[in-house]
Amino acid sequence: MQNAEAVPDGARITVCEVGPRDGFQNEKRFIPTERKIEIVNALFACGIRNMQVTSFVSPRAMPQLADAERVLAEMDRPADAVISALIPNLRGAERAVGAGVDAVHTVVSASESHNLKNVNRPIARSLADFESVFATMARAGVIVEGGIATAFGCPFEGVVPPEQVARIARRYRDLGASAVSLGDTTGMATPATVRAAIRAIRQEVPGLPIHLHFHNTRGVGLACVMTGLAMGVTRYDGSIGGLGGCPFAAGATGNVCTEDLVYLLGESGYETGIDLDLLIAAARLTQDALGRELPGQVMKAGPRLRRFDPGLTATAAG
Amino acid sequence: MQNAEAVPDGARITVCEVGPRDGFQNEKRFIPTERKIEIVNALFACGIRNMQVTSFVSPRAMPQLADAERVLAEMDRPADAVISALIPNLRGAERAVGAGVDAVHTVVSASESHNLKNVNRPIARSLADFESVFATMARAGVIVEGGIATAFGCPFEGVVPPEQVARIARRYRDLGASAVSLGDTTGMATPATVRAAIRAIRQEVPGLPIHLHFHNTRGVGLACVMTGLAMGVTRYDGSIGGLGGCPFAAGATGNVCTEDLVYLLGESGYETGIDLDLLIAAARLTQDALGRELPGQVMKAGPRLRRFDPGLTATAAG
Repeated sequence: MQNAEAVPDGARITVCEVGPRDGFQNEKRFIPTERKIEIVNALFACGIRNMQVTSFVSPRAMPQLADAERVLAEMDRPADAVISALIPNLRGAERAVGAGVDAVHTVVSASESHNLKNVNRPIARSLADFESVFATMARAGVIVEGGIATAFGCPFEGVVPPEQVARIARRYRDLGASAVSLGDTTGMATPATVRAAIRAIRQEVPGLPIHLHFHNTRGVGLACVMTGLAMGVTRYDGSIGGLGGCPFAAGATGNVCTEDLVYLLGESGYETGIDLDLLIAAARLTQDALGRELPGQVMKAGPRLRRFDPGLTATAAG
Repeated sequence: MQNAEAVPDGARITVCEVGPRDGFQNEKRFIPTERKIEIVNALFACGIRNMQVTSFVSPRAMPQLADAERVLAEMDRPADAVISALIPNLRGAERAVGAGVDAVHTVVSASESHNLKNVNRPIARSLADFESVFATMARAGVIVEGGIATAFGCPFEGVVPPEQVARIARRYRDLGASAVSLGDTTGMATPATVRAAIRAIRQEVPGLPIHLHFHNTRGVGLACVMTGLAMGVTRYDGSIGGLGGCPFAAGATGNVCTEDLVYLLGESGYETGIDLDLLIAAARLTQDALGRELPGQVMKAGPRLRRFDPGLTATAAG
């Protein structure tokens, strides 16, 4: 059954880079705006065309992204890029439109306690508040992607029923969302929960595009991508170098790493339009800018067909 | 087609712990024998029953495993455990039998240049040398698992033809191997190469059990496990904490991490007989013994249904 729905070999997979938003927001030290722009430009140069560049949250709440307008204004924006930003509310949406984004990403959690903690209101209130956001974005001609946080589990409540995710997806569809993006906010997604959420949404809202946003907090981010591919999902978020973190787990890694994801997709016969060598260089640039080792693996090992001289290297059996 | 062969939900998956061999051998500093035994015993206490405990190579060539006999003699061996060791040749095999192993693991590379570099002889010579090993093991009633290194790619030659892997598998079957173990020696396995190798072996040697030994060098180790499961493979190696490394990539991680693998399998509805909480404790014990952070993720983040108090923790949107 999975295979009947699988993305066919050679198909185009869209990789959306979210490091400049989800990754940078986890960095305690302010990254100079010039460095952010340098990284964003390096990512575009790799062929990335979908990017969540920043977030229009309150600069007081998140000083790291207080330079949202400047990054958007000064980056080298490819003509065919789709630039998005996360927005928490109408005010953020209006700032995002003013800054010239193509798309905004709204967020509501699938679990009540996480939504209360994250945006200080019940889920129903979040969804009601989105009405003015969607109306304003429709007038501005800006796409809205409906983000559903804690879609695969909640750090406070545990299991999140797939039906609850599907109900929010239906509401998003009714509001006019281009797609829903299932957020694995604290790294609780597993192949089984991914399958269940996708099935529930497809049953409730047939035809609504699904984007997948995994964190590698428990090491299974790319295993979940395998499930997404087997289920026919063609769009995945990644974060350059595996930037990001988990507020509940010291030392845990962040989003699925973009270059590891692109490596997996390329080696699996999918087309991403992204140059892996340039992407590895962009990951190293990001690592240098942040001054610490990032969790990405391919940036350390290189592409798989990198060849070594048998005369010059040590080996180990097995 | 994949799904037709997939391991059914609820099936038993065998996880073989190879950290005490493949992991420890990569450690530069000698791990005191008492600490090795403590770690091995902690792993048995988790429910692990298949373990590659050590290697009977020349103590001069690998001083780290010079205590092979003592570890085997002094560990708390569960009655139902299947204890194996890697052996490079007949001398090693005889030492292993003397030390009371249940199984030995031979190694030949699927690529000529790697076999020359690793054991200083052509593949044909390795396979010919195995005849006396298999004969001796048969007399001793010891199982032989036929290891094939560089099964998914060679750091010197690049692509390794699946047919070459299948030819070695046939030879192993003819020699009397219980199974072949496909070794992802330098982390070049991808879902596509895993699928190709399994298909080639099944066509050439129908019915021969296949074990999969992945390294997470390029971040896709568990994605390759997903492919193995979809192809019906029921046995995987792992290394506690993700111990190990890659001789060609500084900073790259080692084997697929046992506790991340057990987490993935458990959450996917498979039965491993291994207690995840105890396994996380064993990973932390190993980390303490080695005095450095290991790459395993679940040991940092905990099981997915670990609950947090919304009042006491910080959150981040998305």
